[in-house]
Amino acid sequence: MPARLGDLVARLGGELHGDADLLIEQVASLDKAGPGQIAFLSNPRYRGALATSAAGAVIVSPGDGDGLLRPHIRIRNPYLYFARVAQVLNPEVVPAAGIEPGASVHETAQIGVGAHIGAGAVIGARAVVGDGAIIGAGSNVGDDCVVGAGTRLYPRVVIYPRCVVGVRGIIHSGAVIGADGFGFARDAEAHWVKIPQIGRVLIGDDVEIGASTTIDRGALDDTVIGDGVKLDNQIQIAHNVHIGEHTAMAGCCAVAGSTRIGRRCMIAGAANIVGHLEIADDVMVSAATLVTKSIVSPGTYTGSVPFMEHREWSRNFARLRQLDALADRVRTLERQLASLQSIKED
Amino acid sequence: MPARLGDLVARLGGELHGDADLLIEQVASLDKAGPGQIAFLSNPRYRGALATSAAGAVIVSPGDGDGLLRPHIRIRNPYLYFARVAQVLNPEVVPAAGIEPGASVHETAQIGVGAHIGAGAVIGARAVVGDGAIIGAGSNVGDDCVVGAGTRLYPRVVIYPRCVVGVRGIIHSGAVIGADGFGFARDAEAHWVKIPQIGRVLIGDDVEIGASTTIDRGALDDTVIGDGVKLDNQIQIAHNVHIGEHTAMAGCCAVAGSTRIGRRCMIAGAANIVGHLEIADDVMVSAATLVTKSIVSPGTYTGSVPFMEHREWSRNFARLRQLDALADRVRTLERQLASLQSIKED
Amino acid sequence: MPARLGDLVARLGGELHGDADLLIEQVASLDKAGPGQIAFLSNPRYRGALATSAAGAVIVSPGDGDGLLRPHIRIRNPYLYFARVAQVLNPEVVPAAGIEPGASVHETAQIGVGAHIGAGAVIGARAVVGDGAIIGAGSNVGDDCVVGAGTRLYPRVVIYPRCVVGVRGIIHSGAVIGADGFGFARDAEAHWVKIPQIGRVLIGDDVEIGASTTIDRGALDDTVIGDGVKLDNQIQIAHNVHIGEHTAMAGCCAVAGSTRIGRRCMIAGAANIVGHLEIADDVMVSAATLVTKSIVSPGTYTGSVPFMEHREWSRNFARLRQLDALADRVRTLERQLASLQSIKED
Repeated sequence: MPARLGDLVARLGGELHGDADLLIEQVASLDKAGPGQIAFLSNPRYRGALATSAAGAVIVSPGDGDGLLRPHIRIRNPYLYFARVAQVLNPEVVPAAGIEPGASVHETAQIGVGAHIGAGAVIGARAVVGDGAIIGAGSNVGDDCVVGAGTRLYPRVVIYPRCVVGVRGIIHSGAVIGADGFGFARDAEAHWVKIPQIGRVLIGDDVEIGASTTIDRGALDDTVIGDGVKLDNQIQIAHNVHIGEHTAMAGCCAVAGSTRIGRRCMIAGAANIVGHLEIADDVMVSAATLVTKSIVSPGTYTGSVPFMEHREWSRNFARLRQLDALADRVRTLERQLASLQSIKED
Repeated sequence: MPARLGDLVARLGGELHGDADLLIEQVASLDKAGPGQIAFLSNPRYRGALATSAAGAVIVSPGDGDGLLRPHIRIRNPYLYFARVAQVLNPEVVPAAGIEPGASVHETAQIGVGAHIGAGAVIGARAVVGDGAIIGAGSNVGDDCVVGAGTRLYPRVVIYPRCVVGVRGIIHSGAVIGADGFGFARDAEAHWVKIPQIGRVLIGDDVEIGASTTIDRGALDDTVIGDGVKLDNQIQIAHNVHIGEHTAMAGCCAVAGSTRIGRRCMIAGAANIVGHLEIADDVMVSAATLVTKSIVSPGTYTGSVPFMEHREWSRNFARLRQLDALADRVRTLERQLASLQSIKED
Repeated sequence: MPARLGDLVARLGGELHGDADLLIEQVASLDKAGPGQIAFLSNPRYRGALATSAAGAVIVSPGDGDGLLRPHIRIRNPYLYFARVAQVLNPEVVPAAGIEPGASVHETAQIGVGAHIGAGAVIGARAVVGDGAIIGAGSNVGDDCVVGAGTRLYPRVVIYPRCVVGVRGIIHSGAVIGADGFGFARDAEAHWVKIPQIGRVLIGDDVEIGASTTIDRGALDDTVIGDGVKLDNQIQIAHNVHIGEHTAMAGCCAVAGSTRIGRRCMIAGAANIVGHLEIADDVMVSAATLVTKSIVSPGTYTGSVPFMEHREWSRNFARLRQLDALADRVRTLERQLASLQSIKED
């Protein structure tokens, strides 16, 4: 889906410098781009790569455009602009509307105009699939679910009964939405008695959910994923969690039950957040950090350990078992030294 | 499925105070419950919430019931009782018995009375599906597997050949039971040669397995999950692991090969247990802890690091690389000070 | 599939001692093996178990064979030999060639000779399935994918369009290959704008991929998994990662975007590697280690914390928040003591 440089600017804005008729076939990185491709420069560190790039055109900030002879587009946020150009050049491949052979659609389900139901997909009783939604092959939309207009489920997604997914969402393969939360009471013999999980999962609009991510239904109330949230692969969201609008979470994070995460947070990969916490808006959590207390202020929070060559690690980390004793010894030294000094001054 | 308060007590025990005819429609939390709902108080910390709750009835301990005017049930373990009330009010929704169109059931498979085989499910040769078992849409029960009576597989579960699941189990979507354990020998060129994994997975009765949890088959012997074990989502159980009866494990834990975990253990989320260990009965492991040695005594074991504001973390955790040197410096100081003191005393 | 001891040696090499006609029915561990079974001894620590074992035959190193009366095979690498014997005795059970009822194969797809397409599997447009490949029930091979000859997809694997899997591969159930990488630009309102992920996943020959492992497609270029790589269950490989030939990675690891891992590396379970790093060949990373910097030399690298009884942990780990201050106090003590000593010496 190639586009003229001039047409891109007409559609997406920015200041065109150079040949408006240049045909752009694809986006690429500065170092890999060829004549028919457009790259971007957002970090001044890569100005050297710009000079040597074979890219037919580039997207740059106004400052980086000064004196640039190559065809380019000047815009305040080149990376964002690049994302939009990439979308124009790479429209989503969508399957034809209709219900494929081998799909099972309950007679009481409502299927919207232009929706696609893939081979082997199952749509439950009273489920509603919005206009233009795509239900991938082998996906399962449970009884009484709602899947919003334009939302795409890739193959083999499972949505348990009564859950709601907003419009324009993307759910990748293997994701499981609405399985039972992990809730049990212990009886006198230390056997676990299941607490029925009667809440739902409510997912807002423009949400993307990664492959094999699991979001459990609420125990009594609902698990809620706000508009614009982006969840990467293999994330685990426990029952009753709330995730605020436009928060992004990288792969393999886990959030335990009833925790509320604010808006616009960025949680790096493999971070874990324990249950019943409140995380403020605009919080950043670093990779592999375990969050064990509520966070009330925006900022970046970290709790990982440095890795080392194994022998060095053994030497240093064994000391962790004696850290409290070491602190006591330092306090003792301080007292003794103070006592020596006071004697000397006498 | 509403019930009279008196009928609940007749069925589940406890001491009724107030109107036996009160119709209870649903369970709810103290702060959200309305007139037709029943809540519980198990932690005296929430007595304030009890006073202001609009719940039609409550479940309380005998002590908390003193002087309570609202209809209530007194019982020693209110939370456990609440679980049982929730089960009565929320009976599981089960699909009709029979084999749905599009399921593939091998001619040598045995399907029990009242069992349900969902659309697109595959039941292998000589597999046995017990009475009243539910095999969700698109699930796969391999050749020579046994799925016990009353066990439910939600959609898209895969059980590899020869594995056994006990009665009254629940396996959530995306779980994979019996894939090959990770076993290879290295040849002279450092290429990996696969060791066939010829063991099975044996799962006891009353076991619940979460969404996208994976339990590998044994290498030579079997991987064994005891009766009453509860596994949350995205847990990884490697080959030859044994998990004792009534142990519970929260989301994203991993247990490496051949480790044996005792009975009634509670393993918090994202904990990892390395291979070839023995963990005693009644052990609790805290969230995100890496267990690297066997544990012989009951108790709680922890090994996570505190998280901090990022700058504070940088300052403190950089010191971990110098911890051994710091301990050496403290020892040197102690010697020097002792020497100074002895001189002074001379 | 039993075999005579002499036939095993004729086929696999090694030095036979004892009855060539002994019929071997199965492999087993030293302590469980019976008369018709063959075990191995590779670690001299287990020589005691050898003495008491009921194994009909054993595989040992030349040194351990000295004076051994039991039928045995002497070979330099007994564990590797054991793997090969296990393969001979346990040939893979493969389904019959052909397309099962309920599979959906696009009319433009090419299906190789002897390939098996399971019930409910979906093969997309222009996809190529090699000779003798096995596509498990309910698996999904996207448009324009290539699955090499002899490669096996277990049930419910999803491969997104345009990805390539080499020959003789094994992909376990629930794995998702080629879902979108996690790439977004942030707009002025802090909303995320999706960057189309136009790269592919290219998987080499002889690769094994575990259950529920996810490998994302590249953003602009490709994600590449080298020949002979072995990935365990629930691993997450982000976009643009390269993994070198014959590297093995245990369960629950995650590798963030654009990182390049060398050849023959061994990454233990639950390790996380952040993005944009270079890891040299022959690097070993210990369990649950977070790798935050490139590694240029072979060796073993570790960054986990010791676990302790919870009270002991509280005492010691609270000190981590004061580690920088503790180091400052030690420095102060050193200065004060030096000053005292110099005074004394004056």
